Amino acid sequence: MDRKKSFVLKGHICYSDEKKKLHIKPNSYAVCKDGVCQGVFEKIPQKFASFEVRDMGDVLVIPGLTDLHAHAPQYAFRGQGMDLELLEWLNTHTFPEEARYADLEYAQRAYGMYVEELKKSAVTRAVIFGTLHVEATEILMDLLEESGLETYAGKVNMDRNGGKNLEEASAQSSAAETRRWLQETEGKYRHTRPILTPRFIPACSDELMAELRTIQKEYGLPVQSHLSENPQEVAWVKELCPKAKSYSDAYFQAGLFGGTYPAVMAHCIWVDEEEIQLMKEQGVYVAHCPQSNANLSSGIAPVRKFLSAGVSIGLGSDMAAGSNTSILRAMADAVQCSKLRWRLVDSEAKPLTFPEVFYMGTLGGGSFFGNVGSFLPGYAFDALVLDDTSLPQPRKLEVSQRLERFIYLGDEQNIVCKYVNGVCIR
Amino acid sequence: MDRKKSFVLKGHICYSDEKKKLHIKPNSYAVCKDGVCQGVFEKIPQKFASFEVRDMGDVLVIPGLTDLHAHAPQYAFRGQGMDLELLEWLNTHTFPEEARYADLEYAQRAYGMYVEELKKSAVTRAVIFGTLHVEATEILMDLLEESGLETYAGKVNMDRNGGKNLEEASAQSSAAETRRWLQETEGKYRHTRPILTPRFIPACSDELMAELRTIQKEYGLPVQSHLSENPQEVAWVKELCPKAKSYSDAYFQAGLFGGTYPAVMAHCIWVDEEEIQLMKEQGVYVAHCPQSNANLSSGIAPVRKFLSAGVSIGLGSDMAAGSNTSILRAMADAVQCSKLRWRLVDSEAKPLTFPEVFYMGTLGGGSFFGNVGSFLPGYAFDALVLDDTSLPQPRKLEVSQRLERFIYLGDEQNIVCKYVNGVCIR
Repeated sequence: MDRKKSFVLKGHICYSDEKKKLHIKPNSYAVCKDGVCQGVFEKIPQKFASFEVRDMGDVLVIPGLTDLHAHAPQYAFRGQGMDLELLEWLNTHTFPEEARYADLEYAQRAYGMYVEELKKSAVTRAVIFGTLHVEATEILMDLLEESGLETYAGKVNMDRNGGKNLEEASAQSSAAETRRWLQETEGKYRHTRPILTPRFIPACSDELMAELRTIQKEYGLPVQSHLSENPQEVAWVKELCPKAKSYSDAYFQAGLFGGTYPAVMAHCIWVDEEEIQLMKEQGVYVAHCPQSNANLSSGIAPVRKFLSAGVSIGLGSDMAAGSNTSILRAMADAVQCSKLRWRLVDSEAKPLTFPEVFYMGTLGGGSFFGNVGSFLPGYAFDALVLDDTSLPQPRKLEVSQRLERFIYLGDEQNIVCKYVNGVCIR
Repeated sequence: MDRKKSFVLKGHICYSDEKKKLHIKPNSYAVCKDGVCQGVFEKIPQKFASFEVRDMGDVLVIPGLTDLHAHAPQYAFRGQGMDLELLEWLNTHTFPEEARYADLEYAQRAYGMYVEELKKSAVTRAVIFGTLHVEATEILMDLLEESGLETYAGKVNMDRNGGKNLEEASAQSSAAETRRWLQETEGKYRHTRPILTPRFIPACSDELMAELRTIQKEYGLPVQSHLSENPQEVAWVKELCPKAKSYSDAYFQAGLFGGTYPAVMAHCIWVDEEEIQLMKEQGVYVAHCPQSNANLSSGIAPVRKFLSAGVSIGLGSDMAAGSNTSILRAMADAVQCSKLRWRLVDSEAKPLTFPEVFYMGTLGGGSFFGNVGSFLPGYAFDALVLDDTSLPQPRKLEVSQRLERFIYLGDEQNIVCKYVNGVCIR
């Protein structure tokens, strides 16, 4: 037993189970053994009696949060240019900025800032886009590895419809660069994993998708991409892929839509019932990014439908289309947007509840990494210790009230410590 | 000349003019004389050469923000119970909490926390609801006065449809208490002004509205209330006021809808064209509260229509239906919600731009107080000095980019100092 990674944490422990039920255990003990949670107890069981007890006092203890979708190279323009729709925004802000990552000094500086922010944040796990540049993506992965966070990061593939200086010459060269990146990073990291990253259908030719499918089988890689963010984009995909029944089907036909190898798709706003069924069957994850979807006038994803259909779903910041990297904020945004959707779009779709968004930000997204995002026995011990006493309050609140308040008003400054696999990384 | 209130502030000065144009003046000088702005200059004019120059360095200097709508007694449950619609939420959370303000010790403690937060915030002016309790409202006003903020605060009137322990016995007793409050506070404050505060039509009988109209004329008071927040509420008003053509008309018939005495109405989501015209004619202010309107599933106000019609409009936190007291956040929320409205409700209504929401948070709302919310000559010198250098950035930004970024990512911790009428209050 690794004694450093075996201990008992005392506090007000809050977590979701696999049925999305929220458990609130005031003054309880979460047991970590070798970095793995052994459960939450009112009294410390005899078999853990020898473990070091870390009594954190009057704090909230919650699972670490997962950011299921973020673009590391967009850090420089978060909170800017928020006056455009997706396709304009990509050409005006995103592509020119991403082209800068050919400059490795810039990549080191900018990625350093992003990873530092992520390390300070409530996020313990993240699934991240880099750029098409192999070296810059390796710098990003080096920095992520040092941070102690558990992440997937991907070199982007895009061989059509990119920006000036931001397009790969051919499907073959894109594939070759991807192989080079995978070879150069193979076995190099303990906490940082590669993920295939075709930008989105409009940026990837059929040939490139076929190459990626081959690489996926060879390396056994998951895939991250974008799906159905904007009506114009959906129409464009229809033109580009006349044989596909839908945007989802375009990925499915390419063999990159879940099934054997996991896939996470950001946004999924304008999907139809048939696509939702396909996502369910293929085990495709939705990365719901409510702030981004407002910032780029994209719309509001039908999250209630995903939950009812049993589609896997977590939250994403989609930084920098989402200005803010906070997944706490994403939980609150998800509730708010679901309420506007109920009022303005579909009165059949009940707004999301607090326990549902808490689940999405913890276990929902965390499960993309395996048994992650809960304090159930057998889950990775990713935990946040939150001191919310700096939030003024004229009367005593229940732990459940403090927890809900925290997602609306708390931030990374309230984090006392953050554990990933039982290791305190801040 | 008061030399303490006469100085020159150097920084990157950003402000709106009365046509909503945003002016960005890097490395410029804002001149304050006796608490009144004399304009912004690239070089200090000869006539101000003797004024003390406060060179603030590489900072943004913007006008103080106005919160046009907040409920001071709701501070205790911000970020909680965000799973209900307006009328349920009022009965479950709001009315029981407000009833606590009969307890003056509680009022002192809770109002103290709220006013402290307001003082630290980017807000220099606010228009605030108290509760129906005279003494507690006086405590609130005492605290506001000490803070140095410029505010309107109102004892609430509600003689029907209140909660348990939160309803006045009759129109007459409500009016008598209002007179007592006005007499007890008359001449007591320099920075804190009374405002008539009928809660909303469902809580005020016709008799009470008539009494308030009489008091308004006697004291020359403005009025704050709520208008058309929720479809159920609108339907209820229709039942309660069968002779009124609309919710707005119900206030208009009562003589409490602008005209001689200013009125500010929170929300105004479900108003029709005729109401918008009436608001314009009567000079009624809209307090747009986008976060609240999402939290309570109320909808998204037609802000573009208000702007096109020339209706006066500012931003409100509507704390605690808005979880957050930040008007910076309200600016970003206003942009985001206008984009969702454009996408989901009305593709004719162009989303709000950054200069428009900046105007709304500064001059738009500030003008309820007179010449407030700009650095044009003759405006009250309300200013925020913002150090945004703690927001990491891998490359140099223009001042205009820093300003936009700030509303998305900045907060009260970036405030170096805050002037109200030329006096630094933090």
